[in-house]
Amino acid sequence: MARKTKEEIATIYQQMQDYICTELEKFDGQGKFKEDRWERSEGGGGRTRIFQNGAIIEKGGVAFSAVHGPTPEKILKKLGLEKANFFATGVSIVLHPKSPMVPIIHMNIRYFEMENGVYWFGGGIDLTPHYIVPEDARYFHHRVKETCDEFDTAYYPKFKAWADEYFYLKHRKETRGVGGIFYDRLTGKDEVEFENILQFSLAIGRLFPEVYGHFMKKNSKIPYGSKEKAWQNLRRGRYVEFNLVWDAGTKFGLDTNGRTESILMSMPPQAEWTYMYQEEPGSEEEFTLRNLKKNVDWLNFGL
Amino acid sequence: MARKTKEEIATIYQQMQDYICTELEKFDGQGKFKEDRWERSEGGGGRTRIFQNGAIIEKGGVAFSAVHGPTPEKILKKLGLEKANFFATGVSIVLHPKSPMVPIIHMNIRYFEMENGVYWFGGGIDLTPHYIVPEDARYFHHRVKETCDEFDTAYYPKFKAWADEYFYLKHRKETRGVGGIFYDRLTGKDEVEFENILQFSLAIGRLFPEVYGHFMKKNSKIPYGSKEKAWQNLRRGRYVEFNLVWDAGTKFGLDTNGRTESILMSMPPQAEWTYMYQEEPGSEEEFTLRNLKKNVDWLNFGL
Repeated sequence: MARKTKEEIATIYQQMQDYICTELEKFDGQGKFKEDRWERSEGGGGRTRIFQNGAIIEKGGVAFSAVHGPTPEKILKKLGLEKANFFATGVSIVLHPKSPMVPIIHMNIRYFEMENGVYWFGGGIDLTPHYIVPEDARYFHHRVKETCDEFDTAYYPKFKAWADEYFYLKHRKETRGVGGIFYDRLTGKDEVEFENILQFSLAIGRLFPEVYGHFMKKNSKIPYGSKEKAWQNLRRGRYVEFNLVWDAGTKFGLDTNGRTESILMSMPPQAEWTYMYQEEPGSEEEFTLRNLKKNVDWLNFGL
Repeated sequence: MARKTKEEIATIYQQMQDYICTELEKFDGQGKFKEDRWERSEGGGGRTRIFQNGAIIEKGGVAFSAVHGPTPEKILKKLGLEKANFFATGVSIVLHPKSPMVPIIHMNIRYFEMENGVYWFGGGIDLTPHYIVPEDARYFHHRVKETCDEFDTAYYPKFKAWADEYFYLKHRKETRGVGGIFYDRLTGKDEVEFENILQFSLAIGRLFPEVYGHFMKKNSKIPYGSKEKAWQNLRRGRYVEFNLVWDAGTKFGLDTNGRTESILMSMPPQAEWTYMYQEEPGSEEEFTLRNLKKNVDWLNFGL
């Protein structure tokens, strides 16, 4: 068995974008994706698909890209490598729901290859509920763990811990949400392992609409008022802070002349900041903040 | 004449905070500053004063701090210096007005000293109108230039160009607003020059309420509607992007365990993001965007 080529992987990831968009439109029932195709002057391009003003999803994007060209200096320097061309392809998603009772979600799968033979897979999926609901956090982590376990039982514990570290707002001493998994620089020693990692990324891709569809159905009918909406806007502010201050992908993209509107599709439709916001003791808001911590066993949270 | 000590400078800057707050409360006529005193575990502390829900100022802060302790590794590395204690004091301001017709403003004056004898002054003032008004931009730059010229006629051209570079959103190819001045690492060769730079920073401090009071009076009565308010929220989004992605002071503060709520007092009360927002050709919004560029001669803009 020969290793799939980078072009084949790009095609498969593009199909994954199609699949996810079709599923999300079905679950939302009202909104439709709007597609922008773009080209990168140094090579390659992408299809950014944006969802605005759906019944459930207020703003979100499902982006596919496949870019190539000279490897950015920053990467070469970090890896201590000589000049070489690179190829990168992936699917990246962030969805901001209208209702504060439905969580924000992010998913990314990507493949990177250099002409000197270096290659790796990266990705992850993480959930950011405005309000932590123990049952939802458990469901999410169980489904992620089951998906990981199909490929390697070492994946979930390792990548769950990695997500805790990655999706962390150091300046707030808060995790972004209830986490999930994050992995990077995943390579295999032979064709079989390579294919296994690729299939793992595709399983994460397929898991995405399944779990988010679950939350769309289950939570979008829960009533809420202006108090919950205000809290949502503060949490969206934190999402902005994470993405602009700490997210390595966002920083790298903005720094290396990436397509700004595609990178910042992760921004919420709106966000608010209040100086020294004090949540009420014993409130749902306080419960959420108190549990935005690393090393929480979400599989058994609240049991 | 002996050089003023760091403690004397801190006291003078603290008085400047008092002066500015008193002036702003007078101009607003409704809001009052709320003060938070805080201490830094490594040494020193500050007085953060926050203004929320004024008649004209919707959210803003005037912060004073005087901190000391071991110089952060990042600074030592950047300067190629051996371990030494530092002392830093300054006044930092960001004001977000309620009305989109009143500009956002920022001002900062600061003094930094290390026990190995290294010292410098830094600071700046820059204006971010939601809508560029040629008369306002000219007024602002004229008053800033006149203030600079009292000390050194080389200051305005040099520091104006520096502001163009500093207050720049590379990922948007936009300046944050109509700029102003920015300066850093300003040192003098003797006591006279030292005092001159200190007095320059105080003149900028006094200029601040004068120019902002002018805009508060002149622009806060201009009528506006939901279109202008929506545009304001998009521009506030850009302000967030600049501060979290590019502002060296913000990044440094968040990275070195600074007081988050004081650093992020610069965040607007709310902000919005719309994917690929298209301003109408020939509109005020389009005029503004088109002129958010470096190297604009604001002294003669629109004449």
